[in-house]
Amino acid sequence: MSDLVITSPANQRLKDLVTLRRRRAREATGTTLVEGLEETTLALDAGVRPLALFHCPELMLDPQVGAALVERARDLGAEIVELGRTAFDKVAYREGPDGILAKVPAPGRRLEDVELPDGALVLLCEGVEKPGNLGAMLRTADAAGVALVLSADPVTDWGNPNVIRSSKGTVFSVPVAAASADEAWAWLAEHGVEVVATTPDTDVEHTDADLTGAVAVAVGSEKYGLTDAALARAQHRVRIPMVGQANSLNVATSAAIVVYEAVRQRRRS
Amino acid sequence: MSDLVITSPANQRLKDLVTLRRRRAREATGTTLVEGLEETTLALDAGVRPLALFHCPELMLDPQVGAALVERARDLGAEIVELGRTAFDKVAYREGPDGILAKVPAPGRRLEDVELPDGALVLLCEGVEKPGNLGAMLRTADAAGVALVLSADPVTDWGNPNVIRSSKGTVFSVPVAAASADEAWAWLAEHGVEVVATTPDTDVEHTDADLTGAVAVAVGSEKYGLTDAALARAQHRVRIPMVGQANSLNVATSAAIVVYEAVRQRRRS
Repeated sequence: MSDLVITSPANQRLKDLVTLRRRRAREATGTTLVEGLEETTLALDAGVRPLALFHCPELMLDPQVGAALVERARDLGAEIVELGRTAFDKVAYREGPDGILAKVPAPGRRLEDVELPDGALVLLCEGVEKPGNLGAMLRTADAAGVALVLSADPVTDWGNPNVIRSSKGTVFSVPVAAASADEAWAWLAEHGVEVVATTPDTDVEHTDADLTGAVAVAVGSEKYGLTDAALARAQHRVRIPMVGQANSLNVATSAAIVVYEAVRQRRRS
Repeated sequence: MSDLVITSPANQRLKDLVTLRRRRAREATGTTLVEGLEETTLALDAGVRPLALFHCPELMLDPQVGAALVERARDLGAEIVELGRTAFDKVAYREGPDGILAKVPAPGRRLEDVELPDGALVLLCEGVEKPGNLGAMLRTADAAGVALVLSADPVTDWGNPNVIRSSKGTVFSVPVAAASADEAWAWLAEHGVEVVATTPDTDVEHTDADLTGAVAVAVGSEKYGLTDAALARAQHRVRIPMVGQANSLNVATSAAIVVYEAVRQRRRS
């Protein structure tokens, strides 16, 4: 049933897999890891064609369900590798591994390959650090029909396993790209997309700005928000009204509030 | 400078502190723990009067800043206890402890003590499980001026240290309460607050519902959303329009989108 069986944790194939936990190795190879039955199923549902699927029947809670996923991956052209328990433990990065690990093409396309529809709604993240926030923004982008999530000067890559996990598979279904800030802003300008910076540093509330055209909603890092350079480049600024003691909403929450205001305006216009 | 110095990790006071990691002990004593300089500062900024402050000068990155916080806690009536390094390590629950730990009254008030303003906006969470989601909702509630965050049949208590951390201090500044679902719904009805259930199971979009009156926006558990019982009791249902592949937004994101739609309507009306 498998193309290969590996029992030794010292196997070179497994060592190569483990290096994919590091961003540098993911970027050098253009691949990343998806672990677990649920996550791998979500990735395949989103159209991912796995390069290899590693499975350990002994670890599976429901070997029949696991075997069905293995067959699905095989049909998609994946090499199927069975691992012994100690071998699987070496490559698993989660607590409580369930015997499924896929090697997949890292998510993300080159900007030159992105095609934007007219009046596209884009989400621009500059310096967002926490994988959980990027994952939550991807779920929002998926739900809201955002045409592209563009990461400028990324601190965390789209292939980060914790981004993949918290995105619930949407990192593979929503168009995502990464670029330097210079490239990202130049590309947006070229495509007629105006940037709407989310910042406390304006009197314009997000509900008073016209978000019906081709716009990129921009959010910055968890700690500092958008940089002065980004604020200087943005065509528009909006603030979310806040009355409380704390000085900021979570970045993924802010992105969702402004993106869904854009959705509201578009459904009305 | 301290009322007491403890060096032995076997000290009974420290054992009692450690039990506060468990919900049962927090609920039995009405107290909880806040760890770290930043978190404790946020709690004090929100008006918390600590019962005791445990400090370990040896672990502090900046002993002067730490000492200032200790004095601030003393001025608020806290007992000041200095701990030796091994003693502090026993009670710290975070990785990389910074030598500050406070014992504080657990956040949350009894429903009978809550006073609602006219036309109050309430957030009702039923069965939300993840501390990070509860924390994010509290930050949203703080920013949006939500009058009460009410947890019905709570799976996770407001005093959970990870709720405290992810709320950035807002769990102490936003009015929060917890009750059984029966009590919560009865209390809301008594106070003329109508419940708006957030659910895919309706054709009414959240932007088409009137959210300007006294309403409670209700969200359910991460996995299953609101229960059938909750949906049956709610006076209104709204859905957030979604076009994507994944079938749901994150619960804290959903709450933020509907709460900020209510804010938008109220600022317009």
